[in-house]
Amino acid sequence: MPIVYHNGRFIESSQAIRSIEDRGLLFADGVYEVVRYDNGRPFAMRPHIDRLKRSLGGIELPGIDCEAFGPWSDELMVRNGLKDARVYWQVTRGDTGPRSFYIPEHIEPSITLIAYPAPPVDRKAFPTSGGAISADDCRWTRCWIKSTMLLPASLAKTKAKSAGAIECIFVRHKPGLDAHHVTEGGSTNAFIVRDGELHTHPNDGWVLPGITREVLIDAAHASLGMPVREVCFTLEELKQADEVFVCSTTQLSPITSIDGHTIADGNPGAITTKLHFAYLDRIFDQQ
Amino acid sequence: MPIVYHNGRFIESSQAIRSIEDRGLLFADGVYEVVRYDNGRPFAMRPHIDRLKRSLGGIELPGIDCEAFGPWSDELMVRNGLKDARVYWQVTRGDTGPRSFYIPEHIEPSITLIAYPAPPVDRKAFPTSGGAISADDCRWTRCWIKSTMLLPASLAKTKAKSAGAIECIFVRHKPGLDAHHVTEGGSTNAFIVRDGELHTHPNDGWVLPGITREVLIDAAHASLGMPVREVCFTLEELKQADEVFVCSTTQLSPITSIDGHTIADGNPGAITTKLHFAYLDRIFDQQ
Repeated sequence: MPIVYHNGRFIESSQAIRSIEDRGLLFADGVYEVVRYDNGRPFAMRPHIDRLKRSLGGIELPGIDCEAFGPWSDELMVRNGLKDARVYWQVTRGDTGPRSFYIPEHIEPSITLIAYPAPPVDRKAFPTSGGAISADDCRWTRCWIKSTMLLPASLAKTKAKSAGAIECIFVRHKPGLDAHHVTEGGSTNAFIVRDGELHTHPNDGWVLPGITREVLIDAAHASLGMPVREVCFTLEELKQADEVFVCSTTQLSPITSIDGHTIADGNPGAITTKLHFAYLDRIFDQQ
Repeated sequence: MPIVYHNGRFIESSQAIRSIEDRGLLFADGVYEVVRYDNGRPFAMRPHIDRLKRSLGGIELPGIDCEAFGPWSDELMVRNGLKDARVYWQVTRGDTGPRSFYIPEHIEPSITLIAYPAPPVDRKAFPTSGGAISADDCRWTRCWIKSTMLLPASLAKTKAKSAGAIECIFVRHKPGLDAHHVTEGGSTNAFIVRDGELHTHPNDGWVLPGITREVLIDAAHASLGMPVREVCFTLEELKQADEVFVCSTTQLSPITSIDGHTIADGNPGAITTKLHFAYLDRIFDQQ
């Protein structure tokens, strides 16, 4: 039985339970993070802790000691005998008594950490590529907050899987703009390569400020000497791109088609592949 | 200790627990309803069951016997010795194993019903009025689904309460329109009275198809002989309205100011008050 961290204790997961009146269940009143461990070492712990702080600020949930999530994660890995895992962190506002939209002053947050075992990464292996489908970005407008309101992503990603695709690409008509633009993937940030430049949606609140996104932007500059533009692009521009990929904490994935339309020659792009290896280098070299 | 209905059993609420991996917690993958009971009788049970079905369809969660929620609610009232209550129904997709965005084919939905006691309604009492504040409607775009993704409403309603207001009024710039429009309240539908007509946002997917909303539209026609238009209006038009009110299953509430701007003479409007009593008549006469 896996061990989880749950409200101050390390316990068997079957004993880690939530009240039916936890605000996480009643109001999706919570935020989360996922941190990767490879060969026993966490990657980008600092940015994850910092983003958790920003998300908690975004939902006005004060008083959480975010610095403790690092040591809790480390101990969870040891207690489960894991070297490679994705550690899920969740903070909800907890059970505050009979259901009420109004957030009371005194709250008892619920904090849970779960370590999901992952296969060890072969840093010489090429990335797994696949097609994507576009999906209406029907999510809330504060996607910079990593909230648990993931139903739209869950539905769209499930639809993608049913269509044989590896990701959905969200497309949104933002107010005041004259066209629909690609925002990001269902659980990834989306990039295109175009005329030797790397393009991804700006960090303007409509996308998650992805930690792998930042790592790749830095790697594109530092390792490939490549210009990066944080700029909106349309689905049509994505279709016509030289290369397309999505990235998350888990992986970078070349996208070889969108809605059945083949991108470039249908193979993972050269720059995408270089960035994949640059990401793995950073994970294993802990730069 | 209150008795709740939980996955096939009537049990003490402290024993009704959810797994930390329930999709309701991980992905806000659930929908809900609230049904009122007055003097032992449910109001508008049929529309609540029908809306639950539509919501479940909207999140692609099949196989739920929605007809059973009526008898379960009735029994919950009896077991708790209640005559007046608001019965909360929640269906999530349940614990489907290790966290994954992808919805598996085999699921074990979690169903919980909680009866919250309510004070008996005095059908002769005037409604409780108050001010409102406007709030950016940052919610997802499928508000016709009564999903548990209520964090934006919880935050905005809490902000309203802090400001001494009784509700927040959501305002959204819908794609393709040239202005911001009032959609609805944080947990209510919003109405204005203007030149002898009742106006409320159309049921176009951007608002919840409120059951009280339908009752009041019907009552305005049938009891007051009043024209009703389902039409968008701006916050400025709301400010200039003759009367403003919001409604939910719980109550109809006259809104006497918005963002500190007094509406009309600052008193509950005559038509609003008539509709309040028409609503109570329908509840008690079960028309």
